[in-house]
Amino acid sequence: MENGHAGKHRVAVIGSGNWGSVASRLLASNTAKLPSFHDEVRMWVFEETLPTGEKLSESINQAHENCKYLPGIKLGTNVIADPDLESAVKDADMLVFVTPHQFVEGICKKLVGKLRPGVEAISLIKGMEVKMEGPCMISKLITDTLGINCCVLMGANIANEIAVEKFSEATIGYREDKEAANRWAKLFTTPYFLVAIVEDIEGVELCGTLKNVVAIAAAGLVDGLDMGNNTKAAIMRIGLREMRAFSKLLFPSVRDNTFFESCGVADLITTCLGGRNRRVAEAFARNGGKRSFDELEAEMLHGQKLQGVSTAREVYEVLTYHGWQELFPLLSTVHEICIGQLPPTSIVEYRLAEGQS
Amino acid sequence: MENGHAGKHRVAVIGSGNWGSVASRLLASNTAKLPSFHDEVRMWVFEETLPTGEKLSESINQAHENCKYLPGIKLGTNVIADPDLESAVKDADMLVFVTPHQFVEGICKKLVGKLRPGVEAISLIKGMEVKMEGPCMISKLITDTLGINCCVLMGANIANEIAVEKFSEATIGYREDKEAANRWAKLFTTPYFLVAIVEDIEGVELCGTLKNVVAIAAAGLVDGLDMGNNTKAAIMRIGLREMRAFSKLLFPSVRDNTFFESCGVADLITTCLGGRNRRVAEAFARNGGKRSFDELEAEMLHGQKLQGVSTAREVYEVLTYHGWQELFPLLSTVHEICIGQLPPTSIVEYRLAEGQS
Repeated sequence: MENGHAGKHRVAVIGSGNWGSVASRLLASNTAKLPSFHDEVRMWVFEETLPTGEKLSESINQAHENCKYLPGIKLGTNVIADPDLESAVKDADMLVFVTPHQFVEGICKKLVGKLRPGVEAISLIKGMEVKMEGPCMISKLITDTLGINCCVLMGANIANEIAVEKFSEATIGYREDKEAANRWAKLFTTPYFLVAIVEDIEGVELCGTLKNVVAIAAAGLVDGLDMGNNTKAAIMRIGLREMRAFSKLLFPSVRDNTFFESCGVADLITTCLGGRNRRVAEAFARNGGKRSFDELEAEMLHGQKLQGVSTAREVYEVLTYHGWQELFPLLSTVHEICIGQLPPTSIVEYRLAEGQS
Repeated sequence: MENGHAGKHRVAVIGSGNWGSVASRLLASNTAKLPSFHDEVRMWVFEETLPTGEKLSESINQAHENCKYLPGIKLGTNVIADPDLESAVKDADMLVFVTPHQFVEGICKKLVGKLRPGVEAISLIKGMEVKMEGPCMISKLITDTLGINCCVLMGANIANEIAVEKFSEATIGYREDKEAANRWAKLFTTPYFLVAIVEDIEGVELCGTLKNVVAIAAAGLVDGLDMGNNTKAAIMRIGLREMRAFSKLLFPSVRDNTFFESCGVADLITTCLGGRNRRVAEAFARNGGKRSFDELEAEMLHGQKLQGVSTAREVYEVLTYHGWQELFPLLSTVHEICIGQLPPTSIVEYRLAEGQS
């Protein structure tokens, strides 16, 4: 990879929501210090007009704060918001993707032919679609559309906790290019954010999506039914095992060890300790499944959807298609509960398949 | 193994505390149903006189309830309390050890020459001593003293939750004799208690001890310092990794997969979600380490001790002796915090050793 002006790498962040703002802040604290990076972190902002009449990008550049998605936290004066996508990326040789997953394809199409040669990408986006013909890996979409190398960064990363510099870890998954992975790790690592690299991009990226299905069960249903900590731990464990087995069936290159990394067991734990999945699925279970997820999401999430519910449906379609349901009792049962085919209590009423533990 | 009268196995439980009573209840529900086991489960009771003047063993046999250690739960009429150790075991060919670990040696010595030929044992005891010359595996102590095969059963098993039949899992660790392990699994498995067997007795048994050190950090210190869920998940993950690495250094036969079982990740999760470790270590952290564990234990646990504090000290001695401290930053740091050498906040102030993740 060629470096930018004066041999320094230039970083652009595509996305400025909650996680995008936190990532920009983290990166900017490093680019300001590390000699091999240009200070400035350019952050593409999907422009919005604030209630004050001000533009979001202008507000960020004036206050050095994203008052809409990360209020109260200074981003650093070297984070520059830019509402123009082409302008935001034109000098960058390191691109960080951190938008909702459904926007990536459109963004990539707009970027075709607009990037510098030798640019590298990383995706921080969790929650891909799992289609019948295979999961839509965001890293692959970026690589295929733009012809560039793309790593992923996943982990136990609740954005607001990283914003206030609580100790966290993350995992970078890469394919072959270890040097690129190490450069990303250097760019992201701080004393409160430890980054490990593993050569298993599919395993790392799938963790960030599949954990949402397990969280519906382990955080929401188990808590809503007051089943206690043994049950919660058991469902998390079975879920982690099924995440691993499912990933390995889809990609034989996936490694067991990946599930011991931050992207695996740790992200599952942090997701199951709190968050939207828990609140909505808990309400679902407390109502005995009589109020649908659609209804509860509308009421509790103001129109947002639970990633785990749609991922559970997609995974179920894959399992049904291949006749794998019996191998994945937990993943199957979560979907059957979500659609009202089974009561919430059935989350603990299955047996492990023969030969499994 | 020879069977008992009429070809049926006879089960005796050595211990009648909280977990011993719950285990007896669980086993008795199965022996009453399974044709290959004699109905009766004989439970050795360390005799006490209750405030009413009644003997504990008599009270249990009259009320079919252990009013001291498991009040409000019926054990089943086929659980027979016996205050005489020799009498409790004399007809049994399946012995379940579930006493505090420090009593096992004395009990075993009393049993020498008193057992039926072909008797099998299983230990449910968590919390061995980790001596410089190696950990004092309870299973090995039983095997060596009595000359009998001994499995272990560990897992995410908060006794009071199993007593009310909340869904749980457990792991049986065995050495070579898979048939014996399967017999124990059959005896313990119920629809709400799923048991897996793994041929890794050291790995399984070490999990039940080492998790207590991690719980001091992940449950107590992190919560006491209000560090949030990313940090908690990160410390649990690092702890699990160090448990695995430490076990493998002590016993090269230990398997990675064991840490994905209930005895590994699940027991760690359930231990870190609550319990004594959490309460006391949280108080320790909130006081900035200024009040010692000894003092807090005396105040909060009425003289009981936190297993994790003494295990942390023992593990530290082993690490120091071998020069392994840098390989185990979390296990080392927990001890240094416990003895006041480092402040509680240093639980997140170490780096991962080179090459680790």
